[in-house]
Amino acid sequence: MSRPPRVTDLQIDEAARAVFLAQGPSAPLQDIAKRLGISQPALLHRVGTKEALMSRALRPVPPTALALLEPGPRDNTPIEDQLLEALLHHRDFLRQLVPGLFVLHYSALGGARALHLDTPPPVALREGLTKWLTRAKRSGRVALTEPRAAAEALCGALEARCFNAHVGGSTYAPGDDKAVLRQLIRVLLTPGEAPARKPQKRTAR
Amino acid sequence: MSRPPRVTDLQIDEAARAVFLAQGPSAPLQDIAKRLGISQPALLHRVGTKEALMSRALRPVPPTALALLEPGPRDNTPIEDQLLEALLHHRDFLRQLVPGLFVLHYSALGGARALHLDTPPPVALREGLTKWLTRAKRSGRVALTEPRAAAEALCGALEARCFNAHVGGSTYAPGDDKAVLRQLIRVLLTPGEAPARKPQKRTAR
Repeated sequence: MSRPPRVTDLQIDEAARAVFLAQGPSAPLQDIAKRLGISQPALLHRVGTKEALMSRALRPVPPTALALLEPGPRDNTPIEDQLLEALLHHRDFLRQLVPGLFVLHYSALGGARALHLDTPPPVALREGLTKWLTRAKRSGRVALTEPRAAAEALCGALEARCFNAHVGGSTYAPGDDKAVLRQLIRVLLTPGEAPARKPQKRTAR
Repeated sequence: MSRPPRVTDLQIDEAARAVFLAQGPSAPLQDIAKRLGISQPALLHRVGTKEALMSRALRPVPPTALALLEPGPRDNTPIEDQLLEALLHHRDFLRQLVPGLFVLHYSALGGARALHLDTPPPVALREGLTKWLTRAKRSGRVALTEPRAAAEALCGALEARCFNAHVGGSTYAPGDDKAVLRQLIRVLLTPGEAPARKPQKRTAR
């Protein structure tokens, strides 16, 4: 028998993710091995245990929107558009993340608690967005009294839509994400009286 | 052998709920029967199938906060307090509901989709709250431009806190629900200029 083709870690994670999401935490390892074209013992040799595989294939990672928010508001684009861009980026991230959270919850890992992220992803995003909104406020481009409350409302509304849609399908979160978020941004943020045409100290990207 | 004591439907539902929430959708019927002190065949005779039992024990019901919101704002209590009362009532409801949604999702039922509620619970609550806020606005007791957006923000923030806390524990939704919601209410609703001292047509409860 010729040596079986080597599968990469990424291929293993992708196969495991697909099978766990389709079948839930009780999915047999055999189905993942079959998908990869290797034997179950060979798969176990690579990953250690089923729990370890589930953890690395479905583990929550820090929200990628944080990198979008980190530099603060850009000068050349309306605040509303920038905010919407970051939130829709996070919507796509959540759509990938949420199904895995449901699987992990009933795994032997005991859910996301077992994953030891330093800052829980929902907290990290609220903090990143609060900082971003505070900078937008300081630059005079928006008027809002409580950046933290606005971040809570925006993150919460977005997360709830993703959770609800995962639980019950699109009728549980009717309407268009973008339209709902834009409306919320307009209610929470009013454009500043001095519309950001004053020179900034730091160079914005 | 003497006739076994009859268990009520409510007892069956409570036992099933406890076992499914503790062990997930793959919990054996035997564990539920044992908890009830009856045999597995006797349990199946009562409930039909495991899926039917899971459905009736964990089925989402319409949010009970709808009944609190239905009469509209009362005259004798500040709007903020009434809103907070309804939202915290709904928080308690969600804490009961959310764990069951996670179990149902990986059951043979295919999640909440299989349960055929006329109006999905999150949609019903947004509609109920939008109506309530519209009445508060029309009575001049609060100023808010978009009752629907405010309802989306409040329901979303609350649902997200309950979902996040279920997924990752209290560090995923840090702080006090009541304080977070009160802050959000203050950001979204400003007290009306005419503070509701004008006579109302209908008698408020």
